[in-house]
Amino acid sequence: MKIIAIDPGYERLGVAVMESGRPETVVYSTCFQTAKKLSHPARLAAVQKEILRIIKTYSPAALATEALFFSKNQKTALAVAEVRGVILALAESQGLHIYEYFPAQIKIAVTGYGASDKKQVAQLVEKLVRLPKKPKYDDEYDAIAIGLTFFAHEQRFSTASQ
Amino acid sequence: MKIIAIDPGYERLGVAVMESGRPETVVYSTCFQTAKKLSHPARLAAVQKEILRIIKTYSPAALATEALFFSKNQKTALAVAEVRGVILALAESQGLHIYEYFPAQIKIAVTGYGASDKKQVAQLVEKLVRLPKKPKYDDEYDAIAIGLTFFAHEQRFSTASQ
Repeated sequence: MKIIAIDPGYERLGVAVMESGRPETVVYSTCFQTAKKLSHPARLAAVQKEILRIIKTYSPAALATEALFFSKNQKTALAVAEVRGVILALAESQGLHIYEYFPAQIKIAVTGYGASDKKQVAQLVEKLVRLPKKPKYDDEYDAIAIGLTFFAHEQRFSTASQ
Repeated sequence: MKIIAIDPGYERLGVAVMESGRPETVVYSTCFQTAKKLSHPARLAAVQKEILRIIKTYSPAALATEALFFSKNQKTALAVAEVRGVILALAESQGLHIYEYFPAQIKIAVTGYGASDKKQVAQLVEKLVRLPKKPKYDDEYDAIAIGLTFFAHEQRFSTASQ
């Protein structure tokens, strides 16, 4: 089973395409950035176009992403929500199943601890999956961690139903 | 010149297609609602599909909409931001020019007063535009008010440049 995992962000977006297995494999990962000189709608449209390209290239069955997040910086939270809206509508219209996880769920799935930091997440990500190349950006690690959360939940549910 | 004006909302979306003239004419208006039983991504995809249908039907040159808004209810603000993201990316990818206005700008353009209430806006909307039918919902009036703001600014700018 192949999935696309996305860590939504406004300036940078972490994306990972992952395949089930023991361990799971990262088929493709990237940190997609939009040019600052672009207008706000043009940046949103660029995200839409790039995610559609990746979906068309890898045909994932599901999208795993981070759930709505609250922030003290409401401007940032709203900009990320706009990106999330674009991604969710696109994945839905492309027929993907959609799974959303809260930050603490992701950290627990990867490190066993809900308040782990970015470095701990990155270290465990490297141990837990087969990586074709070492990710360059935090955002890529975050996307892979979201994908791992999907597979961890998936496994637990399929074991529970046996 | 034809435009589409949208009052973004999560449960209900006000939409108006308007044409320039003296006075401006409302070519089409609606209050688009998404079914509560749908999943969150399915509701976003339904908004995307309906706005695309209206754009394809009327071929507006521009989108006028309400700018990012802040709210004490952050959950509502984030849900509306997701809808806004869908609309902005769609309008951009369809080649529309995009104009955003803050609530006070819209009220000033329609009533001359930045703190006017919904009833005052609705009353003046009825006087200012040619309406094919009386709008049923507040959201439709709000969308028409956003469209009027576009035309008011447009007129001022074109007069200033003469």
